Parts: sequence; C-alpha cells; structure tokens
Amino acid sequence: MTFLARAATRTGRLAKQRLNQPSSSSSSSSSPKRFYSPEVKTSSVPGPISKKVLSEIDRLTDARPSIVAVDYARCRGNYLVDADGNRHLDMFGQIASIAIGYRNERLEELAGSEEFRIAVMNRPALGVFPPKGLKELLETGLMSVRPKGLDHILTANCGSTANESAYKAACMAYRHRERGHSEFDQDEITSCMENAKPGSPQLTIMSFKSGFHGRLFASLSTTRSKPIHKLDIPAFDWPAVDWPRLKYPLEQNVSENQAEVERCLALVEETIHESKAKGRPVAALVVEPIQSEGGDNHAPPAFFRGLRDVTKRLGVYMIVDEVQTGVGATGSFWAHEKWGLTTPPDIVTFSKKMQAAGYYHTAEMRPSAGYRNFNTWMGDPARSMQARTIIQYIQENGLVEKTAEVGGKLYGVLEQLGHRFPGLIQSLRGKGEGTFIAFDAETAEKRDSIVSGLRNVGVLVGASGERAVRLRPMLIFGEKELDIFSDKFQAVLKDLA
Amino acid sequence: MTFLARAATRTGRLAKQRLNQPSSSSSSSSSPKRFYSPEVKTSSVPGPISKKVLSEIDRLTDARPSIVAVDYARCRGNYLVDADGNRHLDMFGQIASIAIGYRNERLEELAGSEEFRIAVMNRPALGVFPPKGLKELLETGLMSVRPKGLDHILTANCGSTANESAYKAACMAYRHRERGHSEFDQDEITSCMENAKPGSPQLTIMSFKSGFHGRLFASLSTTRSKPIHKLDIPAFDWPAVDWPRLKYPLEQNVSENQAEVERCLALVEETIHESKAKGRPVAALVVEPIQSEGGDNHAPPAFFRGLRDVTKRLGVYMIVDEVQTGVGATGSFWAHEKWGLTTPPDIVTFSKKMQAAGYYHTAEMRPSAGYRNFNTWMGDPARSMQARTIIQYIQENGLVEKTAEVGGKLYGVLEQLGHRFPGLIQSLRGKGEGTFIAFDAETAEKRDSIVSGLRNVGVLVGASGERAVRLRPMLIFGEKELDIFSDKFQAVLKDLA
Repeated sequence: MTFLARAATRTGRLAKQRLNQPSSSSSSSSSPKRFYSPEVKTSSVPGPISKKVLSEIDRLTDARPSIVAVDYARCRGNYLVDADGNRHLDMFGQIASIAIGYRNERLEELAGSEEFRIAVMNRPALGVFPPKGLKELLETGLMSVRPKGLDHILTANCGSTANESAYKAACMAYRHRERGHSEFDQDEITSCMENAKPGSPQLTIMSFKSGFHGRLFASLSTTRSKPIHKLDIPAFDWPAVDWPRLKYPLEQNVSENQAEVERCLALVEETIHESKAKGRPVAALVVEPIQSEGGDNHAPPAFFRGLRDVTKRLGVYMIVDEVQTGVGATGSFWAHEKWGLTTPPDIVTFSKKMQAAGYYHTAEMRPSAGYRNFNTWMGDPARSMQARTIIQYIQENGLVEKTAEVGGKLYGVLEQLGHRFPGLIQSLRGKGEGTFIAFDAETAEKRDSIVSGLRNVGVLVGASGERAVRLRPMLIFGEKELDIFSDKFQAVLKDLA
Repeated sequence: MTFLARAATRTGRLAKQRLNQPSSSSSSSSSPKRFYSPEVKTSSVPGPISKKVLSEIDRLTDARPSIVAVDYARCRGNYLVDADGNRHLDMFGQIASIAIGYRNERLEELAGSEEFRIAVMNRPALGVFPPKGLKELLETGLMSVRPKGLDHILTANCGSTANESAYKAACMAYRHRERGHSEFDQDEITSCMENAKPGSPQLTIMSFKSGFHGRLFASLSTTRSKPIHKLDIPAFDWPAVDWPRLKYPLEQNVSENQAEVERCLALVEETIHESKAKGRPVAALVVEPIQSEGGDNHAPPAFFRGLRDVTKRLGVYMIVDEVQTGVGATGSFWAHEKWGLTTPPDIVTFSKKMQAAGYYHTAEMRPSAGYRNFNTWMGDPARSMQARTIIQYIQENGLVEKTAEVGGKLYGVLEQLGHRFPGLIQSLRGKGEGTFIAFDAETAEKRDSIVSGLRNVGVLVGASGERAVRLRPMLIFGEKELDIFSDKFQAVLKDLA
C-alpha cells in the first residue's frame, strides 16, 4: 500500500506539472496542439479524399460502414481530423471507446516508455507465463477501480470475449454448485466431447429484449438489439425478457413507470422458473446499466435492486455488462454504483474506454480448476498498462466529477431545445447520468438527418436503436465543447424544423 | 506496386545493415544481448521467486496454470528469463505465438516509431473510422502473404474471434445462396430476434474429433480436444467426425493409412448428407492443417484435397484454421500451401505468431451488407503494424526456408533418439513440416517427466493431446539451438530411461 500511495503521489505531481505547462514544451515534433472549434472544408462529409480512400480500403476489407477515413496523427483531444482535413468535434468517440482524448500526452509518454515497448512487442501467454510485475500492474491499474465486493479479475481481448468468458464462468460455477462441489463424473467427461448433456449442459444465459452484449455466437444469442446483428447466425435458444419501457418525462409518469418496472421484474422471475421447468436452467442474467446499442433505454435503480434480489433468491448469477457504461461517462466510474445494491453483482464486465477488456468477479466465479477459463493470450498486459494510465489520468484530473457536472449542463441544453423542437428531440434520457445522454427523433429519417446534419458542420454523434441519437463524448468534454455543440446543434435543428 | 517494391528494398537494406552490426551499437541502454545457452540457477523450476510471485498474482487472477513468472525485459531471442534469473531455451514460444524472438530489435524499433505510438494509443473503431493509411498498411503487411486466391481480409482480436467471425461469414454466405441472393423476408427479420429459425437458422459448423478451434461458445463447440476445455459449457449440437489416425512410421503403414484417410473422407461426406437430412445443414467445415492442441495429429495432402473436393461438391464452405500452423513454422508460410489444392479454401484464419488476428477470404465470403460482420474494434491497426514487421523480418532473413532446413535436422536428431529410447519417443511426427514436430511418450506420466525434466535443465517445450510433447520453437531457432537442445534432451532421456 505504501508503494501504491507513493506511486499515486508521484504520478499526481507529474500530471500537475504537465497540466501547467504549455503544450509546446513537449519535445515531440508533433506535440499535441489544442483545437477550439470544428472546421469543415469540404462541401459535405465524407469529402472527396475520404471517399477515395474508403473505396480503396473496401477492395481489401469491408469499409461499407465507414464514415470517414481518419488522419489519427492530426487528431487532438476532443477533435477528430479526417483525410480531407475536416476537423470534427467527436461526441461519438470511436463508438464510446475513447476516454481521455486523441493524442493524449500521458498516453504518448507511456507509449514511449521502455516498459510499454517491451510489453507490447513481447506479448505473453498470460495464463502460463505472466510477467513478474503483473500483480503490481493490476493493483495500480485495473484493480484500483474494481467495483465494491469484486476482488478478482480476468482479462480478455474485447467486450464480446469478456462477456463470453463471464458466461463461461457463470456456467461453471452453476454446475459446480449443482454437483455439490464434487469432481466431474465419467458421464460428464464423456458426453461433453459429444457436445451433449450432462457434460455440455443445457444451461441458459438470460438477457433483455433490445439489449446488446456483443456479436460472437453466445454473446449474440443474448443480444436483441437489431436484426442486422443477428440474421443468418445460429443462436442458442436462451430466454430474453421485456425491458421496462419508461414513459418520458419521468416526473409525469411516476406510477405508470413503477408498474412497468414491477411487471418486468415479475417476468424475470417467471421466466427463470419456466426455463428451469423446461430443463434449461438460467445460470446467469446479463444486464446493461443503460441499454446502449438498443437506443439508450434506462431503468431506475429500484429495477436493478429488484434484479439482484430475484437472481440471488433463485440462485442465478448476475452479470453487469459495463462495456459501454463503464469508465466514467455516466458521472460515476461504474454506472451500477448508483443502484445502492446491498449485495454486489457476481461479475462486472468492461472494455471500450478502458482499452483493456475483461471482468471483475467474486471468489465464487473462480473456476474449480486452472485451464478451465483459459486461452493463449488471456488479455494483453500492454493494454492493461494503457488502462492504468487512463485510470490515473481520470482520477488526477477529476474527470468523472467534471463529466457529471458538464453532463448536467448538456442535459439542460437539450431539454430547452426539446421544447423548441419537439419533433426532433423527444424522450430525452440521461438526467444525472453524466454525458451518457440520448434522445429520440420522431422518425428514423429525422434521426438520420440530425446525425448527417451535425456531421456536415463538424460534429460527430451516434445513432442507435430505431430513432435515437446517442451522445458519447469523451471524459475531457468540457464547457467550451458544450458551447460549440449547442451552437452547431441549434443551427442544424433550425434547418431541419 | 512501385511503392511496395521501393518499401521492400528500403527495409531490406536496413535489415542487412542491422544484421551486420554488433548488437552493442544500438543506442538503447537495454539493447538485446545474445545468449548462447540455458542456465538454471535454482534447484528446480519454478524457483522460489517465481513461486512467490505466482501465488501473489493468483490472489487477483487465476495463475494456477502458470509455469514461471517471466522477466520479459531480460528475455532475448530464443531465451526466456524467469523471475529467478533462470534462462530457458524457449521451444514453446508462448504457446506457439512468438515468431521472431524476444526483444527483437526490429520490433523494438517499430515500438519506438511515431507511427506505432500513435496507432497503439489511438485505437480506432476500425469499421467506421479507419485510418487513412489502412490500405497501404494491409498491402505491405498482412495482404503481402495472403494465401493464393484469397484477396480479402477481415481482422479480429484473437484466434477464437477470428474463427467465430469466419463461422459467421460462412453462415451468412450459405443462407444468402440458399435464398437466391435476395433480401431477407419479414419472417426471418422477426424470428431472428427470438433466436428462432428461419432468421436464426439451424446451420452447423462441422469439425474433427481431437481438433481445437478456440474456447468461446461456438469455437468451443467445434473444439474436441480435451474435456477440461468443454465441461459445463453449453454447446451447439454440431457434428464432428473422425480424424484419420495414422500409424507410424508412415513408410511402413502406407496402405493402412490410405484406407484410414478414405474412411474419414467418406465419413465427412456421409455426415454432411445426414446433417442436412436432419434439417441442420453444414454451412462450413473447419479444419487444422495439423491438429495441434489435440496432440499434433497429421494427415496427408491427399486428405485435404479430398476435403476440398467433397466440400466444394456439396456446397459446404471450407475454413482452414491456421492459427497455430501459420507463419512459417511448418517450413512454408502457410501449412496448407503444401496440399496442392486446385481450388483455394474459402477462408483461412490466423492469429498467434502473426500477433494480429483475422481471416483471409474469397469475395463470396463478404457479407451481403455492411455492419453484418462487425464489432467496435474490428482488429487493431497497431497489431497489424507489428504483423507487417514480423512478415518483413521473416522474408528478409529467409526464416521460412531456414526453419524448413533446421526442422529437418531436428527431426533427424529425434528419429535417432527414438531408436535409443523407444518408450520415451514414439510416433515421431512432422517430417518435412519444419520445426512443427511432436512425438508421444509411452504414457502421460512419462510425457510429463520429459516436459518437467527439460524444464529443470532450462528447456521449455509443450505438452498436448494425451501423451504428446510438442515443439514450437520460434523461426529464429537455428543450428546452435538445435545442438543445445540435442545435448540437454539426451541427458534428460538417459535419466528417465
């Protein structure tokens, strides 16, 4: 702990020095310069160079979803610079995966360090040959922000592999408990090699309709956001239940929303019983704090407390998928901190803004033997180093608190605009959730017009769900950026109204 | 192409300069030094420091499978240095994932470059915001070694995600063909959201018994290597067929082995028909050129040509999983090059030694629309840069050819030792397959004694299958290392005999 305290003081001091220095003091020839406004030079976005570059890329690898080709060397902070030299205020952040801005000086410093260079070019098979400093790396980094009650970690390679490894852990723990913590029997050992029960049990992972948990086969089986994600892919016959459909504004629909929450909780309980009766017990429930890809569907803390109660009571593990909500954007480091749970979830998964991926877990989620939840790389120590720097930077600069504050103001701006443009801004969501804010347009077409209208004036936002616009600014999004967004967005809304 | 040619000449010149320089000329304070022999300082491996470090790591993350804690800063070339300062000739290479040695100078140079530092710290959502130089990066790197006939690529995050993304591509292409290349109908769109057919079709991916293709749910459903990989995890009911069990020495069992190959080919055809009759058509067959995790089970080129013929004839896609066999260790860049196929496989997957992961594919494997085989990161340009350097280093130094040559000698040494120690070295495999060599011991216990005996004299090798020892040296394993291994191994065998 003394080591940790010392390290924190040292890095804190360095950070303060750095923040006080003009950026030109950096020795790098391409030292990050600050940008203060978007600038679109082409008649529309993407411009001609992006179009050409994307069509060339597309001959090698699928670039049909690509928006612009990016000049990453020229990106800075909140600003993305595309191949045509257009500068965008990036409020989408690489699908919510950038925490502390482009070309962050502290990350560039880390990249230049010998420790990082060795780690990134000598990637271990982490489970069998871990680096000797792994404990310290985890303690000063990923474990320093572990959710309360979860003292273990497993690192993975991306959000989908984090979730699926969590599903595996839950299935193993469930069966381990069912067999009374004894060894596997011969029938299990033989049948699993045929993908048959009892060795390959018919356990299920329950999820919510309109939820998103990734796009590999098992994670996709729990994903219910859009057909385009799921069409033509074989799926496990796993149960999904209704997510509470809240009515907005919340203040005017209190009792109706409460009834809806209770209905969904009852459905969860009923489905767990039903599934068990069908010989397909639910090993775990996976849930997002805010359904993100599905359109930013929120639910109140009471709903999540109810989920923890019912899963605990019925012996179902609870996996909280914080791949998109984690790491500060909701105004708390983890979104689930706000629920006031008395028992922690069994597993919390992360990826995206952390740049490293994996899950935190209780001791019960540790497999009965080594090699059971295993693979070659088991994550990436270089990415864990990056996560450590991101975490330290966030803490030293109070970015979670700042995000809570600026998020409140952003919400206020949108609330006002919603009164003026009711067909373009409806069901505003994310009050008290930092900058993790979304709203619906009246139709999918209007939503698309907002997204492309903003893009053409140099502001990048995301689309999600059927007709939602989601904002996913970085944690360094501040008052200045809020003012710019506010001006640009008003102009776009006036044009569309 | 002129650009490519120029780049190749330039890097070739640089590499030659570098190879001729004494290593001390490097400006780095920790410039790689060459080691010429293993050295074990502790009474056994792991030593006391490794044991202590591993037990501390284990409190945070599962370290039960860990062999030693590693001091990566001190590793060099073929040598791994552990936390106790023991120096190991590493013939396992982080589960076959190190191609050109620890602390490779060219990789360290790349790590220090501005291009790499920007890429690794500003990871894009590659599908939507690709870097403007992506086409050149792919052309000069991963695409420069694309298997013949496969002109497209999709990058992923690890071997399992590469394979599962390939399974998805195959399922999409299969259904696209079935529906006559027309659009989805409403029934498909609705049913897929319920994980039900026809939208979530009951397609299957066929694999071979004792094969290994990863450990997520779908990849694990095609993996049939060991119960410990599969127990307690729900699996798709997908077919697996016998892998030809060859008898050794091959020269003395020609007709028997040929009959076995034909039996397995017939089984493949039969199973494809049966599966279709059961309403569970086989969309793709996935196959390793050498079943690696399953114990290094080889099959002759005629078997693979037969597989290509039968899959082509029956409209089943063929996925060649080169995650472990790819990138030179078998004496050709891709193991499947030796088969003499007249039609290329539909997909070839890679990971491990490439450090980047993904798959090469034909145009037919491209989904009918964007966003269908999609995720946030879609691979990692920084790892693609690393792959480019690895590929260039291999080519400039002729490492595939050298591996073919030294592998032949390594095989010869083991053949000789097999005559002297028949209970310890049986069914020697990998003739003409570079250093991708394995043998069986009489029993699992004897195999384990060989592995730990070698470890205690500073040589790391891998165990696989039921009683196999597998050798997975890096491509820089040369005559000198062969001599050392030969001496050390003889001593261990004498002790055990």
